[in-house]
Amino acid sequence: MGGLTVMRALKARLPGESFVYLGDTARLPYGTKSADTVTRYAVQASAALMQHDIKLLVVACNTASAAAVPALIATLAPLPVVGVIEPGAQAAVAAAPDGPIAVIATEGTVKGGAYVRAIQAVAPHMPVVQQACPLFVALAEEGLRDGPIAELAAQRYLNPLLATMPRPRALVLGCTHFPVLKDTIAQVAGADVVLVDSAETTAAAVERILQDSKLLNSQGARPARFLATDAPGRFAHLGEIFLGEPIDPGAVTLVDL
Amino acid sequence: MGGLTVMRALKARLPGESFVYLGDTARLPYGTKSADTVTRYAVQASAALMQHDIKLLVVACNTASAAAVPALIATLAPLPVVGVIEPGAQAAVAAAPDGPIAVIATEGTVKGGAYVRAIQAVAPHMPVVQQACPLFVALAEEGLRDGPIAELAAQRYLNPLLATMPRPRALVLGCTHFPVLKDTIAQVAGADVVLVDSAETTAAAVERILQDSKLLNSQGARPARFLATDAPGRFAHLGEIFLGEPIDPGAVTLVDL
Repeated sequence: MGGLTVMRALKARLPGESFVYLGDTARLPYGTKSADTVTRYAVQASAALMQHDIKLLVVACNTASAAAVPALIATLAPLPVVGVIEPGAQAAVAAAPDGPIAVIATEGTVKGGAYVRAIQAVAPHMPVVQQACPLFVALAEEGLRDGPIAELAAQRYLNPLLATMPRPRALVLGCTHFPVLKDTIAQVAGADVVLVDSAETTAAAVERILQDSKLLNSQGARPARFLATDAPGRFAHLGEIFLGEPIDPGAVTLVDL
Repeated sequence: MGGLTVMRALKARLPGESFVYLGDTARLPYGTKSADTVTRYAVQASAALMQHDIKLLVVACNTASAAAVPALIATLAPLPVVGVIEPGAQAAVAAAPDGPIAVIATEGTVKGGAYVRAIQAVAPHMPVVQQACPLFVALAEEGLRDGPIAELAAQRYLNPLLATMPRPRALVLGCTHFPVLKDTIAQVAGADVVLVDSAETTAAAVERILQDSKLLNSQGARPARFLATDAPGRFAHLGEIFLGEPIDPGAVTLVDL
């Protein structure tokens, strides 16, 4: 579901492009699953998308980006594959070049350490602190963007993280669900911490790749198509929270991976 | 994961029995999935358990019980199959024969209406009110049994439900995750509402079936074995919250369905 926040940023930045989106609703969430299982699921999902004649694949999930991008590149070459981790890491270093950088993500992404590696690939020795925030996923899926429950959850996760010394200067929203809670997270984090939303930076990375390979369309976009592996009606209904616009249930096709 | 609350009640009531437990950790949670998908997954899980020479199958998940028990009975006959819905419904009617009865459950269980049907099969015309409580699953999995976040979430879900007139006299915990939050739920519901935990009543139903079929063992239990479809280490660690005792990671086997 959270990948729709990435698609929202892509649609805003690339208005001439056509999108086909697959939500693996039968097997979500990926955030608590092992890297092997997530990789297997991501390869299956990409095979279904390849049948739609795509020119570039965005892995619009931090957990899948952390676990599966190398396998997807190997499987799909020469198709360009863009994950959300590297763009987020680069934006975090640009926002806080002296660090430290804080990362909030799912349990799987935190444990795998992909953001730490990606940030330190750009800025060696950069101090990185991490916190898994599993409740944020449930809050976002219930549309609880603000209010006391969201605030208390944000305080629970962020206060210890931001109390590390020296105080982090950038906070990476390392799960595609978290932009839904951005206002509450910003309020609890405080004005001196820059929030890094990898949806925006991923969209910029996709634009650059399409420009460089002369594949960028500036017009002629078709309406977005959606594939879901379970409950297409629920996908359309819940998806509006993440995409920021209504999803026509008739545009959602049930697929079996 | 929540099914371990049912296993806890079974172990307490049937100390002479040996248990093999399968947690479909690769595809959890079932509560937001369609009935068709849940049925397919449940049939696959039961096939893996049948290889362990079981004498009775407990479907220790409300969503799977609501969706898949008829298919499991048809597939596994003559093996006895016990879901958690009917025992919970019977206990609710016994606790509040004049009603009304309130049910809290996952989105899937509420939408399917299985508790309403099971309660009204025992007590026709019994008024039943329902509320999906998706945050409770995340709170239980994070071990947040009490404290302000759990209390606010319980107030959010229960206050409107219990404000229906006439006031419900029994509240069914219609998801196996919810017993973890029992104290907080009881405090918000108030002393005049009887909480019905289907784990206890399911264990009593299993005992009756084993007695009636002369299959009840009063001694000779082997240590419990656990199967998980993903991340057995996480299963063992998180499972302690639900089972109420440590799970030896060495007793958890990874299986592929």
